Amino acid sequence: MNYEQIIRLMLERGFLLPSSEIYADALAGFWDYGPLGVALKNKYVELWRRYLVRRDNMVEIDGCQIMPKSVFVASGHLAGFEDPIVSCTKCNLTLRADRLIQEKTGKIIPERLPNQELDNLISSNDIRCPNCGGNFGNVRRFNMMFKVNVGPSGEEAYLRPETCQSIFVDFPRLFKVMRCKLPVAFAQYGKSFRNEISPRQSLMRLREFYQAEIEVFFNPDKANEFEKFDAVKSEVLRLALDGEKLEEITAAEALEKGYLPNKLIAYYLVILKQFYQYAGLDVKRSRFRKLGDDEKAFYASSAFDFEVETSLGWIELVACNHRGDYDLSGHSKVSKKDMTVLDGDRDVLPNVFELSMGVDRSIYAIIEHSLVVDGERTVLRFKPYLAPIQVGVFPLVTRDGLPEAAKQIYSKIKLNFEAFYDESGSIGRRYRRMDEIGTPFCITVDYQTLEDNTVTIRDRDTMKQDRVKISELEQALQRRLFTYSP
Amino acid sequence: MNYEQIIRLMLERGFLLPSSEIYADALAGFWDYGPLGVALKNKYVELWRRYLVRRDNMVEIDGCQIMPKSVFVASGHLAGFEDPIVSCTKCNLTLRADRLIQEKTGKIIPERLPNQELDNLISSNDIRCPNCGGNFGNVRRFNMMFKVNVGPSGEEAYLRPETCQSIFVDFPRLFKVMRCKLPVAFAQYGKSFRNEISPRQSLMRLREFYQAEIEVFFNPDKANEFEKFDAVKSEVLRLALDGEKLEEITAAEALEKGYLPNKLIAYYLVILKQFYQYAGLDVKRSRFRKLGDDEKAFYASSAFDFEVETSLGWIELVACNHRGDYDLSGHSKVSKKDMTVLDGDRDVLPNVFELSMGVDRSIYAIIEHSLVVDGERTVLRFKPYLAPIQVGVFPLVTRDGLPEAAKQIYSKIKLNFEAFYDESGSIGRRYRRMDEIGTPFCITVDYQTLEDNTVTIRDRDTMKQDRVKISELEQALQRRLFTYSP
Repeated sequence: MNYEQIIRLMLERGFLLPSSEIYADALAGFWDYGPLGVALKNKYVELWRRYLVRRDNMVEIDGCQIMPKSVFVASGHLAGFEDPIVSCTKCNLTLRADRLIQEKTGKIIPERLPNQELDNLISSNDIRCPNCGGNFGNVRRFNMMFKVNVGPSGEEAYLRPETCQSIFVDFPRLFKVMRCKLPVAFAQYGKSFRNEISPRQSLMRLREFYQAEIEVFFNPDKANEFEKFDAVKSEVLRLALDGEKLEEITAAEALEKGYLPNKLIAYYLVILKQFYQYAGLDVKRSRFRKLGDDEKAFYASSAFDFEVETSLGWIELVACNHRGDYDLSGHSKVSKKDMTVLDGDRDVLPNVFELSMGVDRSIYAIIEHSLVVDGERTVLRFKPYLAPIQVGVFPLVTRDGLPEAAKQIYSKIKLNFEAFYDESGSIGRRYRRMDEIGTPFCITVDYQTLEDNTVTIRDRDTMKQDRVKISELEQALQRRLFTYSP
Repeated sequence: MNYEQIIRLMLERGFLLPSSEIYADALAGFWDYGPLGVALKNKYVELWRRYLVRRDNMVEIDGCQIMPKSVFVASGHLAGFEDPIVSCTKCNLTLRADRLIQEKTGKIIPERLPNQELDNLISSNDIRCPNCGGNFGNVRRFNMMFKVNVGPSGEEAYLRPETCQSIFVDFPRLFKVMRCKLPVAFAQYGKSFRNEISPRQSLMRLREFYQAEIEVFFNPDKANEFEKFDAVKSEVLRLALDGEKLEEITAAEALEKGYLPNKLIAYYLVILKQFYQYAGLDVKRSRFRKLGDDEKAFYASSAFDFEVETSLGWIELVACNHRGDYDLSGHSKVSKKDMTVLDGDRDVLPNVFELSMGVDRSIYAIIEHSLVVDGERTVLRFKPYLAPIQVGVFPLVTRDGLPEAAKQIYSKIKLNFEAFYDESGSIGRRYRRMDEIGTPFCITVDYQTLEDNTVTIRDRDTMKQDRVKISELEQALQRRLFTYSP
């Protein structure tokens, strides 16, 4: 199935829907999660907590989305978080200048090219408005932050364009009260906002989106004194160091060959990959792509994108940036607050290595990688612990007391499991409906249930049925659902 | 402990902190959750899912916070979500007019009083600026929504002032694809935003805050045909129908006496109360207060506030409003989309009963109700399943291999439990630190551990210690942590 077909399935089964779709002024780039989407996303975030946050003893925060102007003076967003745009002088259609030129010429245009050069490219290639054929005005810059005015005096503030800014401003107090020592990672799951010029493809480029960001604070002199690395050094990473060329190599070898700058970074790339394995992504269709100097953010001394292959091509799920001391020194300068911390007997301004994860995209990629069309069956082969509905409960037929017996089981288990009761249609059709939304187990109440208090548990992937006692059902489900595997 | 002392404890132990506090332009009314706050809030929301969303088969969504203008034309917020304000003509201090008059005169001033009458009250009471003694200008209205402009053409949109608007606009599609039947409840946990004039008392009046809202859609002709009510009819409700006077009465009697309008509403008030019992609130210090006509929202035909007593007095945690068909008919009119659904063989425009919960306030109230100061011990007696840290792991002393043995246990359990390893200070001091953040169980590794592979589990509330085998530790913790009780 391709992207459009998958989105249609998601719409029809209540995973997601366009936000405010009943209105003519509904805005592009805003999507809501329906009940199955909420459940899948919650479980995904819990897995992120389990395999990254808790495993690594991270400090998790949940910060405000509206932040004062100074934060974005310090972060550089106010001055530099801009896209080049052009408007048609006739019909006023506004587009991103770099993308427009790229599409018309087929050449890669860095967005950081000065306005004047973009203007020249537009006129030298005689690029006109795709809507009305009119001429474009001059290229100008458009800041992608959403501005809000706070209080009756209208104080200038912004919706954060990345969750990590909350982590940087909360770092001084929390490092102290949580009795942290370097290296220490802070984590946050939450919303960010970017006023994109032309949002596309539902979950791929949203104006309001979920990030799960991890910022590792460390002493730059000690990035290679990192004991935890030893436990993961034999793990294989798929690195694209130079364009599309791919190398499969152990973390230890990647370090030796100088592909990765230090043990700390190598460790975090490995545990990120492991996390996605547990999330059910096909990591054989993933890579860490090293960014060239023209691609990476200006503060990044080294940058890798974790990318996966989908029907839309390679998409970036996580930006892994060595941000140096850019953030803390910026905030320290503007706030005049000392951001150094004690490491051993020295005051150190920590460096930051970041794993900036797009949650909505990750969920899309997991759905696409989990989807198997097998004859008449469409099956979302989610890891059981990620499935939005964990258990279907069905009476075999709707007579002879079977529905009553099934409902009794359903009422009992639904507080502990995400369960769904269904009695409409043939049993085969009910199994198919559960397959399509990825429900790993279905319990069926049949005539034998009335005789010996047993039910069948049907496995989505093998389609085999086991018979278990009702008294042992919860334990049997617990064991099947919460066996974590890569 | 009073409010200020509790907030200080929360700050010192990493529950929360003022957002962007390092900056001079940090804004009032914005607070971030630190790691313990995040964990407590997540567990609180999971409990809400368990006892309200899953128990009642609700449809949970997660909608966008930025919504287009039409939504708020339909909801009435654009025209009417306003506070009366006045500014000092000399120093420009701006205040809420109704509160200012209230404080100066001691009289209750409804915020809906016309501007002219508020002006008269200010001049007749000779109220002057508390800052500089200057005269106030005329009262004007201030819309409390935050406006944002979307895209290069700056389309008008707003941050939602209540999460329920996402539910109303998503209702038509989700009712269909989720194969719903009336009555059905939709639920959402997420952020809302209100541009308060003068935010106060940290978690009590925030500009950016979490709501957990439930909107029950029902056929108004059938609000008394509600079978689920029977199971809860003997539950006692504490109703304040007329000012402070309190009646303790069963749900069935409250219906009979006409205190509650119908079985559906009675049922949801009961399960809300039960939820808070499971959350560890002292419901003997709670009440459902019936709002008078001058207090309730203009669309509400009947309204109860669920309130609890704290060191700040009675605070509202949940607004329970019978909204009639106000919302769906408003959205239907502006969007021109038919919002009726089939109920049996009739098309019905559903009515809405709402449970609109303030999450941040609820968490504060649970903290205050859980806090016990007992001699030198400060103990947060959270329900074990709500505790931010579930298990402390300590070596009795830091020698003879005890730390190694304790760390091994810690590494093993920390993926499945929120665990905290600590070896600094005396064992008594470590227990106290865990008491203060509400950790229900502490595991101690002692000399006997090295002999027979057992550890002690210390119970926060009884301070008793049980000895259990390490091989049975996870099961023992599971049982202790996840025994739900009101």
